[in-house]
Amino acid sequence: MSINTYEKEFLETLKKISRYEQAINVMYWDMRTGAPRKGEESRAEAIGQLSADVFQMRTSPRMKELLDTLAGQKQDLPFDTQKAVEEAKKEYDLNSKIPEEEFKEYTTLTSKAESVWEKAKKASDFSLFAPYLEKIIDFKKRFISYWGYEGHPYNTLLDQYEPGVTVEKLDALFSELREAIVPLVQKIAASDKKPDTGFVHDHFPKERQRDVCHFFLQELGYDFEAGRLDETVHPFQVTISQGDARVTTAYNENDFRSAVFGTIHECGHAIYEQNIDEALGGTNLSDGASMGIHESQSLFYENFIGRHQSFWTRYFDKIKEASPDQFAGVTAEGFYRAVNESKPSLIRIEADELTYPLHIMIRYEIEKAIFSGEVSVGDLPKLWNDKYEAYLGITPPDDAKGILQDVHWSGGDFGYFPSYALGYMYAAQLKSSMLKDLPEFDRLIENGDFQPIRKWLTEHVHIHGKRKKPLEIIKSATGEELNVRHLIRYLEEKYTTLYL
Amino acid sequence: MSINTYEKEFLETLKKISRYEQAINVMYWDMRTGAPRKGEESRAEAIGQLSADVFQMRTSPRMKELLDTLAGQKQDLPFDTQKAVEEAKKEYDLNSKIPEEEFKEYTTLTSKAESVWEKAKKASDFSLFAPYLEKIIDFKKRFISYWGYEGHPYNTLLDQYEPGVTVEKLDALFSELREAIVPLVQKIAASDKKPDTGFVHDHFPKERQRDVCHFFLQELGYDFEAGRLDETVHPFQVTISQGDARVTTAYNENDFRSAVFGTIHECGHAIYEQNIDEALGGTNLSDGASMGIHESQSLFYENFIGRHQSFWTRYFDKIKEASPDQFAGVTAEGFYRAVNESKPSLIRIEADELTYPLHIMIRYEIEKAIFSGEVSVGDLPKLWNDKYEAYLGITPPDDAKGILQDVHWSGGDFGYFPSYALGYMYAAQLKSSMLKDLPEFDRLIENGDFQPIRKWLTEHVHIHGKRKKPLEIIKSATGEELNVRHLIRYLEEKYTTLYL
Repeated sequence: MSINTYEKEFLETLKKISRYEQAINVMYWDMRTGAPRKGEESRAEAIGQLSADVFQMRTSPRMKELLDTLAGQKQDLPFDTQKAVEEAKKEYDLNSKIPEEEFKEYTTLTSKAESVWEKAKKASDFSLFAPYLEKIIDFKKRFISYWGYEGHPYNTLLDQYEPGVTVEKLDALFSELREAIVPLVQKIAASDKKPDTGFVHDHFPKERQRDVCHFFLQELGYDFEAGRLDETVHPFQVTISQGDARVTTAYNENDFRSAVFGTIHECGHAIYEQNIDEALGGTNLSDGASMGIHESQSLFYENFIGRHQSFWTRYFDKIKEASPDQFAGVTAEGFYRAVNESKPSLIRIEADELTYPLHIMIRYEIEKAIFSGEVSVGDLPKLWNDKYEAYLGITPPDDAKGILQDVHWSGGDFGYFPSYALGYMYAAQLKSSMLKDLPEFDRLIENGDFQPIRKWLTEHVHIHGKRKKPLEIIKSATGEELNVRHLIRYLEEKYTTLYL
Repeated sequence: MSINTYEKEFLETLKKISRYEQAINVMYWDMRTGAPRKGEESRAEAIGQLSADVFQMRTSPRMKELLDTLAGQKQDLPFDTQKAVEEAKKEYDLNSKIPEEEFKEYTTLTSKAESVWEKAKKASDFSLFAPYLEKIIDFKKRFISYWGYEGHPYNTLLDQYEPGVTVEKLDALFSELREAIVPLVQKIAASDKKPDTGFVHDHFPKERQRDVCHFFLQELGYDFEAGRLDETVHPFQVTISQGDARVTTAYNENDFRSAVFGTIHECGHAIYEQNIDEALGGTNLSDGASMGIHESQSLFYENFIGRHQSFWTRYFDKIKEASPDQFAGVTAEGFYRAVNESKPSLIRIEADELTYPLHIMIRYEIEKAIFSGEVSVGDLPKLWNDKYEAYLGITPPDDAKGILQDVHWSGGDFGYFPSYALGYMYAAQLKSSMLKDLPEFDRLIENGDFQPIRKWLTEHVHIHGKRKKPLEIIKSATGEELNVRHLIRYLEEKYTTLYL
């Protein structure tokens, strides 16, 4: 067989996988947006079936043959196929190096662990969850030994979410960031210049919030012919296929911020997906470059646009129209200050953009200590609380508001948290470069002219899909290596002006 | 291997197929209820992929082995498995007897033919569609020779939609029905007692129609924990899985009847699906017994309940509330008469319950003549028009309102139409038997107490799924063979009272 025959079969398999994933994603979206209760059990079975079939296609002996053959004649393949082979090979290794029996045990364990975590969180009792966490960590350590690692064992986990990012790099980035943020947070705490935020909790009818969210999506350039907006309990963005990148949002009538900023956040994810090169459709490269790069786009939209003063100069009247009583005595300036309130808090997902990275660093340091073997599960709650005191000046009153707050560990998702903070760094660095090309950035926002911004992001980030690694994207878009100074400068400027 | 091992593998394969079908049905439902335009092309590919995989599972050499082995030891299998084997064997034979190449050609032809039919209908020019129809008929005739047949070649097609129903049976049923209906239709046309129907075309806001439809679904016992109501262009019912039987409806603000009676019709289909024995879940028996039996349930709800005078005695005030201006001068009696207006018309899907069977008979007679070779494609428009004149006293002015009105033939769906009329006969016969058990039928409707009616239908029809053949269901539910006199009596009584 010629290399072209192998390539054709390989690309056909990727296409078949992408069709299965489309089915899985529609079923998932449907389940989260209104599928009836009595169909849940069979829905889980159908998703499980197709997921198992995808796993099988990705790890079949035939896939191995295809990958080995194609990798051996790499130079004869088009660039995109080379990258697709690399990506599929990584997936293959990840999945096939773990003995099947062990992987099954692990899957059963984590699916049980999630409900145990839920119960433990409800009871605010870490000791209920600890034995499960211990087993999950044992599995993960064993998996790391199967996968292998360079430098720190945790690097292997990081690499799964953020290829190319290592403990060595993160340590340097986070320490620089911490040294800048911690004193700033302390100064803000001591400042008298506090925003008035009372009105954010006034009643804002759901229907009107929905209209506002729809309006912002349209303004920002979300393509409604290639997506839709629906309601869920937890907001998410899901890509069904090229040409169908959906967003969902959750409405809280006593805090409009969750729907408004949640929608703008998911809008950033969706605009990324809507602008990936169509030529990559049906391959494993038609996806975001990494968790962190994806997050950089959602954060860019949420914070650099949605929480920008110029945005509310333009749109404050619009939101006031939707809930006139609520915003009667509020100015655009007052609104802007209120939605950028910063103060140390216990819960990551409720944190503001300044303190958020500290929540991530705490988790990162703990995960690193777990996988270097420096700390045992029993020590974790104390370690967690000590770090919150050290970084944020507050101590969780209980496990629910402390170590049990996030679901991630119950699913074995170690190495995932840093991507959230990397997303901030990427976004700020992209913004710095964008300013060179679009010095009128603020005015564009004030005019509601988002097209040049979107175009810039598409050209430098979206279009590439998974063709480039996250750090390559940053390098080629900004001309320099990942540099946390951009985020630091942004936060210092913004929060000094707001509070000091 | 023991027979149990084969049985287990067979049932596992059916379960896998049902999971794939779930995925296909969710994707289909989503496509019809609001999926974005730009995702349509890949959606069609994903549905095509999973459908091909299902086809492959149903016709694989391994499936043949399983079926042969299990059929050979039938006596050792539980009753449900025996029936599931029969059903799968029928499916296998249907699909595997046609040479693969021919089937591919046929599939390509019919997918092209549908758009040709659309164009021909738009241009109202049968000659555009005729060459395609000719080829489709040639294929179908060849398929019949592969499948084999007993008696009339058309029997093989009938059997695919309505197992056990033959030309011999239909000829007798239809001629009796025709002899009763045609004079009745003529008497009504001559009657002066005509209902006032002007108000049906007054504006009825969509939102209010939606509320009314939702209300009727709830009243009739549709389980919203096992389904949902959405909007589409053409109403349909789709079963995603046991526990998830959805209905959709189309709102016409200038004719509320389409949404109201359309929803009640789909409700009948859905209540059937919601009440199939749970033990059949994941097998090929968890489905309606046939097209016609399914239609008997939707028609029972639409006509025997929804167009019953007692229904509007109870609910006229309810619908009046939703559109007060429209119904200001209308009485419950006037409303009942208006929604039961009967007059000869050209378009099948707009026909009333009295004239509807005549539309079906015309198609049946033409299809029969096609497959006995008595008529050529060129003769069809004239034959069509002559029959409309003979049965309904009206002649189509053009092909669009005549022979080109239905999509069915472009997809090769010959033998399908009779099921619509059989549904009427089944429904009327079931109603006669139900009256013996529930003589207070009219009062139950007037009280909005539908539970005993639903229970009766579940016990005699729904629960069995595909365990029984359509004519077995009728026999065991009513104690007699299919008998068209029940439908005739119902129509004569109702329309004599209304018009004569």
